[in-house]
Amino acid sequence: MFLHRQELQHAAKPDAPDAVYARKLQEVLGGQYGEITVALQYQFQGWNMHMPGKYRDLVFGIGAEEMGHVEMLAVMIAQLLEKSPLGITEDAVQSDPTVAAVVGGTDVQQGIVAGAGARPVDSNGNPWSGSYITASGNLLADFTANANAEMQGRLQVARLYHMTDDHGVRDLLAFLLARDTMHQNQWLAAAEELKSEGIEELPVPSNFPLAKEDREVSYQYLNFSDGAAARDGSWASGPTPDGKGEFTYHDGPTTTAPMPAPTHPDARFYGTTDVPNTVERIAGAAQDRLHRE
Amino acid sequence: MFLHRQELQHAAKPDAPDAVYARKLQEVLGGQYGEITVALQYQFQGWNMHMPGKYRDLVFGIGAEEMGHVEMLAVMIAQLLEKSPLGITEDAVQSDPTVAAVVGGTDVQQGIVAGAGARPVDSNGNPWSGSYITASGNLLADFTANANAEMQGRLQVARLYHMTDDHGVRDLLAFLLARDTMHQNQWLAAAEELKSEGIEELPVPSNFPLAKEDREVSYQYLNFSDGAAARDGSWASGPTPDGKGEFTYHDGPTTTAPMPAPTHPDARFYGTTDVPNTVERIAGAAQDRLHRE
Amino acid sequence: MFLHRQELQHAAKPDAPDAVYARKLQEVLGGQYGEITVALQYQFQGWNMHMPGKYRDLVFGIGAEEMGHVEMLAVMIAQLLEKSPLGITEDAVQSDPTVAAVVGGTDVQQGIVAGAGARPVDSNGNPWSGSYITASGNLLADFTANANAEMQGRLQVARLYHMTDDHGVRDLLAFLLARDTMHQNQWLAAAEELKSEGIEELPVPSNFPLAKEDREVSYQYLNFSDGAAARDGSWASGPTPDGKGEFTYHDGPTTTAPMPAPTHPDARFYGTTDVPNTVERIAGAAQDRLHRE
Amino acid sequence: MFLHRQELQHAAKPDAPDAVYARKLQEVLGGQYGEITVALQYQFQGWNMHMPGKYRDLVFGIGAEEMGHVEMLAVMIAQLLEKSPLGITEDAVQSDPTVAAVVGGTDVQQGIVAGAGARPVDSNGNPWSGSYITASGNLLADFTANANAEMQGRLQVARLYHMTDDHGVRDLLAFLLARDTMHQNQWLAAAEELKSEGIEELPVPSNFPLAKEDREVSYQYLNFSDGAAARDGSWASGPTPDGKGEFTYHDGPTTTAPMPAPTHPDARFYGTTDVPNTVERIAGAAQDRLHRE
Amino acid sequence: MFLHRQELQHAAKPDAPDAVYARKLQEVLGGQYGEITVALQYQFQGWNMHMPGKYRDLVFGIGAEEMGHVEMLAVMIAQLLEKSPLGITEDAVQSDPTVAAVVGGTDVQQGIVAGAGARPVDSNGNPWSGSYITASGNLLADFTANANAEMQGRLQVARLYHMTDDHGVRDLLAFLLARDTMHQNQWLAAAEELKSEGIEELPVPSNFPLAKEDREVSYQYLNFSDGAAARDGSWASGPTPDGKGEFTYHDGPTTTAPMPAPTHPDARFYGTTDVPNTVERIAGAAQDRLHRE
Amino acid sequence: MFLHRQELQHAAKPDAPDAVYARKLQEVLGGQYGEITVALQYQFQGWNMHMPGKYRDLVFGIGAEEMGHVEMLAVMIAQLLEKSPLGITEDAVQSDPTVAAVVGGTDVQQGIVAGAGARPVDSNGNPWSGSYITASGNLLADFTANANAEMQGRLQVARLYHMTDDHGVRDLLAFLLARDTMHQNQWLAAAEELKSEGIEELPVPSNFPLAKEDREVSYQYLNFSDGAAARDGSWASGPTPDGKGEFTYHDGPTTTAPMPAPTHPDARFYGTTDVPNTVERIAGAAQDRLHRE
Repeated sequence: MFLHRQELQHAAKPDAPDAVYARKLQEVLGGQYGEITVALQYQFQGWNMHMPGKYRDLVFGIGAEEMGHVEMLAVMIAQLLEKSPLGITEDAVQSDPTVAAVVGGTDVQQGIVAGAGARPVDSNGNPWSGSYITASGNLLADFTANANAEMQGRLQVARLYHMTDDHGVRDLLAFLLARDTMHQNQWLAAAEELKSEGIEELPVPSNFPLAKEDREVSYQYLNFSDGAAARDGSWASGPTPDGKGEFTYHDGPTTTAPMPAPTHPDARFYGTTDVPNTVERIAGAAQDRLHRE
Repeated sequence: MFLHRQELQHAAKPDAPDAVYARKLQEVLGGQYGEITVALQYQFQGWNMHMPGKYRDLVFGIGAEEMGHVEMLAVMIAQLLEKSPLGITEDAVQSDPTVAAVVGGTDVQQGIVAGAGARPVDSNGNPWSGSYITASGNLLADFTANANAEMQGRLQVARLYHMTDDHGVRDLLAFLLARDTMHQNQWLAAAEELKSEGIEELPVPSNFPLAKEDREVSYQYLNFSDGAAARDGSWASGPTPDGKGEFTYHDGPTTTAPMPAPTHPDARFYGTTDVPNTVERIAGAAQDRLHRE
Repeated sequence: MFLHRQELQHAAKPDAPDAVYARKLQEVLGGQYGEITVALQYQFQGWNMHMPGKYRDLVFGIGAEEMGHVEMLAVMIAQLLEKSPLGITEDAVQSDPTVAAVVGGTDVQQGIVAGAGARPVDSNGNPWSGSYITASGNLLADFTANANAEMQGRLQVARLYHMTDDHGVRDLLAFLLARDTMHQNQWLAAAEELKSEGIEELPVPSNFPLAKEDREVSYQYLNFSDGAAARDGSWASGPTPDGKGEFTYHDGPTTTAPMPAPTHPDARFYGTTDVPNTVERIAGAAQDRLHRE
Repeated sequence: MFLHRQELQHAAKPDAPDAVYARKLQEVLGGQYGEITVALQYQFQGWNMHMPGKYRDLVFGIGAEEMGHVEMLAVMIAQLLEKSPLGITEDAVQSDPTVAAVVGGTDVQQGIVAGAGARPVDSNGNPWSGSYITASGNLLADFTANANAEMQGRLQVARLYHMTDDHGVRDLLAFLLARDTMHQNQWLAAAEELKSEGIEELPVPSNFPLAKEDREVSYQYLNFSDGAAARDGSWASGPTPDGKGEFTYHDGPTTTAPMPAPTHPDARFYGTTDVPNTVERIAGAAQDRLHRE
Repeated sequence: MFLHRQELQHAAKPDAPDAVYARKLQEVLGGQYGEITVALQYQFQGWNMHMPGKYRDLVFGIGAEEMGHVEMLAVMIAQLLEKSPLGITEDAVQSDPTVAAVVGGTDVQQGIVAGAGARPVDSNGNPWSGSYITASGNLLADFTANANAEMQGRLQVARLYHMTDDHGVRDLLAFLLARDTMHQNQWLAAAEELKSEGIEELPVPSNFPLAKEDREVSYQYLNFSDGAAARDGSWASGPTPDGKGEFTYHDGPTTTAPMPAPTHPDARFYGTTDVPNTVERIAGAAQDRLHRE
Repeated sequence: MFLHRQELQHAAKPDAPDAVYARKLQEVLGGQYGEITVALQYQFQGWNMHMPGKYRDLVFGIGAEEMGHVEMLAVMIAQLLEKSPLGITEDAVQSDPTVAAVVGGTDVQQGIVAGAGARPVDSNGNPWSGSYITASGNLLADFTANANAEMQGRLQVARLYHMTDDHGVRDLLAFLLARDTMHQNQWLAAAEELKSEGIEELPVPSNFPLAKEDREVSYQYLNFSDGAAARDGSWASGPTPDGKGEFTYHDGPTTTAPMPAPTHPDARFYGTTDVPNTVERIAGAAQDRLHRE
């Protein structure tokens, strides 16, 4: 259950409108690694979680905060669009090149569709998609996904920070950067805690019986490109992070198998084959099928 | 530049066709965390990389291997579909319930569209999307994304392992599981190497000037849900993984700000306001705009 | 700002697991008119709203409730999937036709991807999309969109009600049906209130200067099909709902204009034209462009 | 069956080309509420309709008109693009800022992909999607969807009207505005007619047995935000639009239920649980499954 | 302009309902190569065409026919769904395996969303997308696209023919197969006519100055796989179809170039480089940018 | 199996960075007819092929080359973005209109998301989609699709050639144009070879029994528009390309059938009908269903 409070976690007020920047800010609202993604990702992880306690409290606690971040960005964008011009005459462009920049740099749907408002899309206008979310039920995998999401998110906010001089915007971004710092740290700490408590370990999923895996190739670095430098990495020799093996280095594959023969499905799929698909063969297939079934 | 060799890294031959399983296997071919994703993700990371050497060789070396994994899954799926029935008469269903299962469990587009062939889609038929890829230019962020992709991928293959008894299929999955074990280990090792070499560190991006971030809230756990257990985690007290702070725990937000006032964009966006949008006001706005521009 | 409470607005507990129904229920969680849609739609309307007061409180008040409905459905789906089988052997299908139904009727990604969990997708596995949302800034238009969303949603829940005999599920659906009844009524009441207060009226947007519209055809019913019965409707004669005209009925268009001549863009777009695109013409176009620019 | 006539319902001829505006106009051709949407929406409603007569004639009659609107916009866009420049040299930009505006404001795919032509996409280049359509089989719900579509569409055209000074373009938009006025009125009249004829009424669907709905909460306004003003609306007290109840106002939920316990699906989904997923437990699950099935 | 007539080009009446087949038929209504695609593809080609006369009449003449094919399929699907069951109890499945097949094989959205109606989606429920359409302005390219669309379409209809025994359905498919035969022939004839009239020729676009192309490699077959058989094809030696060269065969590339050096964008993108991104370097970049700009 | 070599087939080095052009070039990397499409399309055709030998070698041989083209374009784009500015101050725009062009013309996600890198998207930022691929199993259909893809691709590259003056970029495009010339020729030659070898012929699929098709309308040109010129084409009279008939010309349809009666699905779908959906009728339907099933 969610309760909404009509205040923000941090001020979200630009010094001045900036329709071009309003488009850019959409990325961290409705992009692949925007706030809608993390808000829903953490909540889905909570709803699907298979145990009560601190890990579930953790995803619920942060998930709700992220919904509030969506809100801060949305109201910020609406204010950045407040003086967004509708139409641009050629005269206006001639007398002020800034107007030309606005023409091209604006998300035109923020105007035409939302009437100078924020939208659930990224900075290129792609609608937010449920396919951005990761919630697998395996917490070590998912906390790694979360750590990645916070890293990508902080990276994007850092880039956006340099794309404006507006103090109000930068003030909000400074806040979001700090929260992303927290969340990166938190997910990495939580991933370590899972391991130290023996709830999950590497390789994920750790309780798949290793004996059923083709252990021969579990720690081989296979170099399918022709660069020689990868041999120097810690992934090419020495103990593996899961503590269960030793890396070895190999140029190219250590195993091969022949390509299987081409398939010959039912003739009535009308695929092209070297066995002519005559009417007779098709009739035969029909017969054959009745028997097969 | 890529060269293709008409052999496989491992045998990909089922004991028997199984049209229902052919659909399920699409997930790890064309799904969010399928082989197309990692193949293209690693290659894009290579093409965008900002330094030569072992890290670039690494993404190129693995990226090409993953393209071969796409191929093994595709030819496996084509063979699983080899006896895929076109049509099911009611009589057939009555006499054999297995047929009923096939009716519903099959990806109908594998038949109607691909003529009993593999497709670049997931197990629900959603086409593979470029939005699945992560390649940010920041290697610590991206190697974390890669580690996550290999964890999610291995998890899905492990689940798929239990969904079939076919020895040929299980044999291929055992091989893929082992390679995912390797790749999980490898990306985690590479992420550690980046840090140990001082090329990148936490929080990502590490060289964004911390002084510009709102450090007050950089290590605060803020609990926006009402569970009490999250206080017990290592993310709520003690030193932070980035080595730059101490976690603290707080119930709810430590900062707040008022909601900003509603915006009043140009009247010709025809938004609903408490200031009536009279024709006069619209004409006024038009006037105003000419001057503003 | 959003706060999460670890309780639900209504019990969400099935009598028994049902993996097939778990897929169907995804429609009202992550479909076009599912709970994610209304939750985010109302909140975006609030963030973009151009006046404070009762209308903004209204969208915020309901938006947060709908987020809680997403949660109830998600935890319900997770429970319906609790006994979801991973693998189905042929023997099992032979001995129990119900298993055959489960094979085909299940969302395979709920298993392979989410590990028996809810997902942000519809009942065919299409990921939820930001394009489902409507938030235009014009409240009469948006409240009509909201009324539609609640009607479509209640209709889908009513259909789903008949697709299960599970008392726990039906109990939750009965609650959701009642809330959809409320919300339909509420948005229609709010739309009326906007009109009675003179804030907005028909046709939306009402303050676009009617004199600029081609009033000749503003109330003509033009019949582009050959059925004769549409003439009998209240849309074909009598006063119009906006109170500003009289409907008239016409067979086919009352106006026509010739098709404009085909375009001849720059020859270097290599479109096919009756004016041969010779190398000379292309060179000419290049010259011409330099001058035009 | 559809017949095409090579003339238009209204002139669609711009005074002058304008590549930037050609992009904006894509919104009402191929956007969420563009003409392709209404054309196909009304026709699908007709094909799925469950009774002959005036309502079916209505959707067919208007659906075909809307296909002609798609055509008018497409030929208008092609003409707006007629002088669209292919390439812009830096010199050209330096000498004329208008060129700079064109660079950014143009839909580059209109040039590269369509050779200066219209495309089935919105103003941000998102392809038109079948998910924009609503055709539920329930006419009161669908006519409300139609009324909304016409409101949103007229709003967008009104905004676009102010984004150009071209008389030819404005002339076409004035015509489209008038037709949208008609269609808004018409769908609202048709919705009223359904109710007055007793074919359908509120709440949609009206013949779902109200006794099966949780009537306790059918007319409660539940305020999940902390604003106090929503209490003043006509949705918080007084009779409800469906004529079957009285609105009441409540702060927050009137009902609650505990969160259900976390699920424990089959161990072979490898979800993280507090019950360790040992190899033994997995083997046990496999055993168990054989018996359950 | 389009006019609708309430009759069909051919009977569209199944002998009996079949909810599973109704799903399959969606492929040729709303799939990549379904009737919506060709209907809109031909019309967009007409709206964008750069010359009047027989080619434009051709695309308009067929485009309108295809809209009628959409209609025939939609009403056929609605009838196939007429007895579609809402709910399936476990008892029903036990007593009749056909019911089990229906459970899994049905498009659940046809029921839940459309109330037993046709939808603008393919047989896996993916919404139709504007990205399926090809209309480039170059007629030889586009008529080749059209010929392909008709081939893929006829292939799918042929497969669907064998998936049912219903005489009414087969009767309609026999009609559609014949029209696809016509349309394949017609587009190939039209492509030949373009060439014989000298309006366009191979390679498309033929008037791009060949001298600007790297003619060295214009007719080389480069074998990037290790199969030897491709050398035997007519594409490996002899005159080329465009009449302007001779095919030659080569194992692997005939040209190579070194990989360019990695890029070093502005330090404030926070990409990982071998040049440490110190705060100093970032400040330097900021300085530098001011000067560059 | 794929092996990667760290060199390119042709130099991919621009004379100078150009962030606006970097966006445009995305079209032929990640668009509908970009290099990712052909690379994966040819490979999927190979994996699904139903016979060994020259045709399979052909698709494998070219498919791998196209993967290398993806790489050349990606590294070219990364270099074009090398000096891409992060932020643009208003001062900078005022002093240099070129900057204004850059603001609008750039793909902002190349900066914010990829840190000045290439992305798997088209020139409007739409992610590459698996739905772009065609691999039906029927080679004559698929080689026609391939010929079309190469035509559309060469057309787009030709247009892009004129959008830049950069010699390095044009040099790469000249190479790609030549390879597209080769590939157009090659697929057309391969299509002819299939026919001359009798493996497949027109109409595709040729072995569908023509007697089952409605031959009456197999070669009729039906003019559903009112233009008269289409009668003059070679598609309106004379022998058909498949050598099996004679074209005839007809104004409008030669066959018609009445619209079928509206459907009356189960009352519990709550569709609107002229038969009132009373509670009684719904109860009746429930009864009826039990018996039907």
